[in-house]
Amino acid sequence: MPVSVLYNHTHRLLVALDCIVFGYDEEAGLQILLVKRHLHPEKGSWALMGGLLNKDENLDQAAQRILYHLTGMTNVYLEELKVFSCQHRDPVERTISVTYTALVDIHNYQHQLTEEFEARWFPAAELPDLIFDHNEMVRYAKHHLKQKAALQPIGFELLPDKFTFTQLRKLYDAIYETQLDKGNFRRMMLATGLLVQLKEKDKTGSKKGAYFYQLNTQKYQDRLSTFFS
Amino acid sequence: MPVSVLYNHTHRLLVALDCIVFGYDEEAGLQILLVKRHLHPEKGSWALMGGLLNKDENLDQAAQRILYHLTGMTNVYLEELKVFSCQHRDPVERTISVTYTALVDIHNYQHQLTEEFEARWFPAAELPDLIFDHNEMVRYAKHHLKQKAALQPIGFELLPDKFTFTQLRKLYDAIYETQLDKGNFRRMMLATGLLVQLKEKDKTGSKKGAYFYQLNTQKYQDRLSTFFS
Repeated sequence: MPVSVLYNHTHRLLVALDCIVFGYDEEAGLQILLVKRHLHPEKGSWALMGGLLNKDENLDQAAQRILYHLTGMTNVYLEELKVFSCQHRDPVERTISVTYTALVDIHNYQHQLTEEFEARWFPAAELPDLIFDHNEMVRYAKHHLKQKAALQPIGFELLPDKFTFTQLRKLYDAIYETQLDKGNFRRMMLATGLLVQLKEKDKTGSKKGAYFYQLNTQKYQDRLSTFFS
Repeated sequence: MPVSVLYNHTHRLLVALDCIVFGYDEEAGLQILLVKRHLHPEKGSWALMGGLLNKDENLDQAAQRILYHLTGMTNVYLEELKVFSCQHRDPVERTISVTYTALVDIHNYQHQLTEEFEARWFPAAELPDLIFDHNEMVRYAKHHLKQKAALQPIGFELLPDKFTFTQLRKLYDAIYETQLDKGNFRRMMLATGLLVQLKEKDKTGSKKGAYFYQLNTQKYQDRLSTFFS
């Protein structure tokens, strides 16, 4: 076997990054942050926050830099998702794109998103046409988010310290883009053993009121590390 | 903000792929497949199966091509893991590496691994020093495998159609590189509801014998898709 089959040192290419940032808000539901593209081709179209990897940084550093420059957001936990590498995804020249994703509380970042950046939240269920393969990236990120939420309870950091079952269900309704059955959802969530019922009730919704719950943080951490420990 | 901060179109780089292939065998435990490197630098050292992305292929295609050329293996389900992108990970010139991982039954591939390829299984717990950042890649892949096994039962495809609890525990012992508590493990696994106890017993190990179990394939598939459905 000729080694050249494996090591053809002539194909150097641009490496881009694109960030899929999900935001949650109880009223608005699941949102995705988009920016207006400032470059040809497709200038003026909506796009994910993206840029190219530079010489002096690794991918994690580049992702933070790009997000900051396009949105003003800092301290966002960005998780690497998947590399999009089809040969003709960028019409100008071959560019592979490493996608990053995050799930944040919209309110925590509202003050950072100033006019300067032209970044805007869109409902995750009704996005405009995005440039290149960005709609495909969003589809993949949504699928990943649902899978993650099915395998491990996530998103508690998006809720207040104490929350009602209705608030918790609304979060999962938003992630799954559906209306989950109230009774089933309650049973499943209680079965995880991760929730602590408080004595206090939320009486804003009804006279009878709804108990507040808290996350059993210790148990949650243990669970995330391993269920075999 | 100058757009050039984001789009500096001069940094084109090589994109490599490296494959972490775990193999399981009840006797030998968890193994990792390595090959001898045929190129300078570090020629003759052990390494993961790697190569460069070519012009006419996407990353998934490149991963299959590289694995086939270096090991003779075909039809391996390779899953993208993570991109390693530190600036100086390759001493010759900047190259980012997209890692892929797989978990296979060693016996299914033994006949494909001929002398020609110099590919060899090593115990996952006792690897030699590998080139570049390949030991770090293996550490990351092992961590990922443990996390995955904690969140969703995996590896049933590595067991015979019917298996004893001892066989199942040995598989998890190998993944976790530990000796799990027999009673706890049995309780946890039965609690998943994924196992069906058969009437037949395995009497090779003791006179009393040990019941065989089967995976409830339907339930397993349902569970993997979502627990909220």
